[in-house]
Amino acid sequence: MEISKTLKPPYYAVIFTSELNNSSEDYEFVSNRMVELVQQQPGFLGFESAREGIGITVSYWKDEASILKWSSNFEHQEAQKLGREKFYKSYSIRICKVERAYCSEGS
Amino acid sequence: MEISKTLKPPYYAVIFTSELNNSSEDYEFVSNRMVELVQQQPGFLGFESAREGIGITVSYWKDEASILKWSSNFEHQEAQKLGREKFYKSYSIRICKVERAYCSEGS
Repeated sequence: MEISKTLKPPYYAVIFTSELNNSSEDYEFVSNRMVELVQQQPGFLGFESAREGIGITVSYWKDEASILKWSSNFEHQEAQKLGREKFYKSYSIRICKVERAYCSEGS
Repeated sequence: MEISKTLKPPYYAVIFTSELNNSSEDYEFVSNRMVELVQQQPGFLGFESAREGIGITVSYWKDEASILKWSSNFEHQEAQKLGREKFYKSYSIRICKVERAYCSEGS
């Protein structure tokens, strides 16, 4: 996992924060499939993810229309249903407009 | 660490993504002090943080003015300098307007 290189603002970010249930046997499989699928979506710019107690996944998008289209993707909707009913103890989704951004040069 | 309960949108989010350098002896001390300090700032609504390879910290704010004030806080500026020069191999800061948000009920 690397820090995403994105566009110059403005663009969009979806901040997805979650707490997993203890028993989530299919979680890894579904999660990996979503990572594969999201990268094929028009307008997808990149994502960053880390789990340490809570999980935070931020995906970056060209515009809101791309986010709406991804959220209504059939396979993604099936995954969302599993998430709500099985994988997540709790979660939060925030749709944001990235207005300004600063990056280090890296080294 | 819990998922932050925030306001109804709109409010602001700062997405801070980072890769630590290998040797960051004072990092934990400075990081803990910033967690303590940020919670005393006017307009601060909460934060979420996880590190797994990369670190993602999202802080939530009432408005942009609160973010600007925090970024110019003296002790925070000293910490930012240490971050740039010592702690972080690379980092990215994104200032976002949270336009929509959805939460699970939790369980």
